[in-house]
Amino acid sequence: MTMEYATRYRNASRIPADPGRPYVIEQGEGDRAHLFGDLITVYAGGEQTENTFNFFTVEGPKGDIIPAHLHTDTHEVFYVTQGAVRLFAEGPDGKQLERTLTPGDFGFVPKNCPHAYRMERHHTRIVGVAAGPGGTFERFFETLGTPTEQLGLPQRPCVPEPHEFADAAAAYDVRFLPGLRWRTA
Amino acid sequence: MTMEYATRYRNASRIPADPGRPYVIEQGEGDRAHLFGDLITVYAGGEQTENTFNFFTVEGPKGDIIPAHLHTDTHEVFYVTQGAVRLFAEGPDGKQLERTLTPGDFGFVPKNCPHAYRMERHHTRIVGVAAGPGGTFERFFETLGTPTEQLGLPQRPCVPEPHEFADAAAAYDVRFLPGLRWRTA
Repeated sequence: MTMEYATRYRNASRIPADPGRPYVIEQGEGDRAHLFGDLITVYAGGEQTENTFNFFTVEGPKGDIIPAHLHTDTHEVFYVTQGAVRLFAEGPDGKQLERTLTPGDFGFVPKNCPHAYRMERHHTRIVGVAAGPGGTFERFFETLGTPTEQLGLPQRPCVPEPHEFADAAAAYDVRFLPGLRWRTA
Repeated sequence: MTMEYATRYRNASRIPADPGRPYVIEQGEGDRAHLFGDLITVYAGGEQTENTFNFFTVEGPKGDIIPAHLHTDTHEVFYVTQGAVRLFAEGPDGKQLERTLTPGDFGFVPKNCPHAYRMERHHTRIVGVAAGPGGTFERFFETLGTPTEQLGLPQRPCVPEPHEFADAAAAYDVRFLPGLRWRTA
């Protein structure tokens, strides 16, 4: 039996509208959105956890590094379950870290630390948890990108308009850092 | 370069003692503990996230169902990356759910919902996030079980003394429910 619910985010979601109920979502069937060439799937958000944490995946092809950014109030997990990810991060002392994560490897970026990543294999999947005392930010991706019912990666890149970056960033604790250079390479 | 830190939990941990620094932990190298036949590995705890969330894995062989229990203040994620897990959970209306999770499948158990699980394949791995407004509970496993430097599953089961269950449960928001029956089978 497959249950679907109307929520504030989707007409048909596998996440129950009533946050007190246990539930299961099969692989790929969470709330989906496209952003550039990637598929973001939300399995639990702030409503489910009293705003303490969320749980989502980011899947995509081998590609370019994403824009460097930081979150002033959000700690972030990067846990790779398929493919490979090059993670870039800068600590409060200005020291930079650059490491390749393969399945089972874990990366942690505390709030206020600039970071970026690059998928280094096709069919890469990152499990993400992104939250802090101010709440969770799992809906950033579909606000900047596009919610979808489709399963799988976007058939063509979903590219936001320039003004949409500023709007989504302001709403979801994202500060882009166009001047930041990764000196680790 | 492999960094190790002395923390309040381990003499040599890959989790930085300073919670503001980004870090990477390769597969299997988090803070490890044995409990019965399982290996629990903590990759991030409350210290890293201002007590908003944690991130750990539970790995084990095909085995028996664990004792039914609930958490009065903790929401819990079960995300399977290897093997298979049979998840049992009961909602606030008394309805019970029993589902098999295979890699990529996601289960969510809100606070106050009785639950249990059974690993149904050898080499199963569950990714867990367990937290709520009262904090995180990732050190339950090593408090009830035994911290270890060893990599891989325990060579013999690590069985706690009966009084240790009550002590660890009281300290980490776990209430065992010996009278609960799963009616779903």
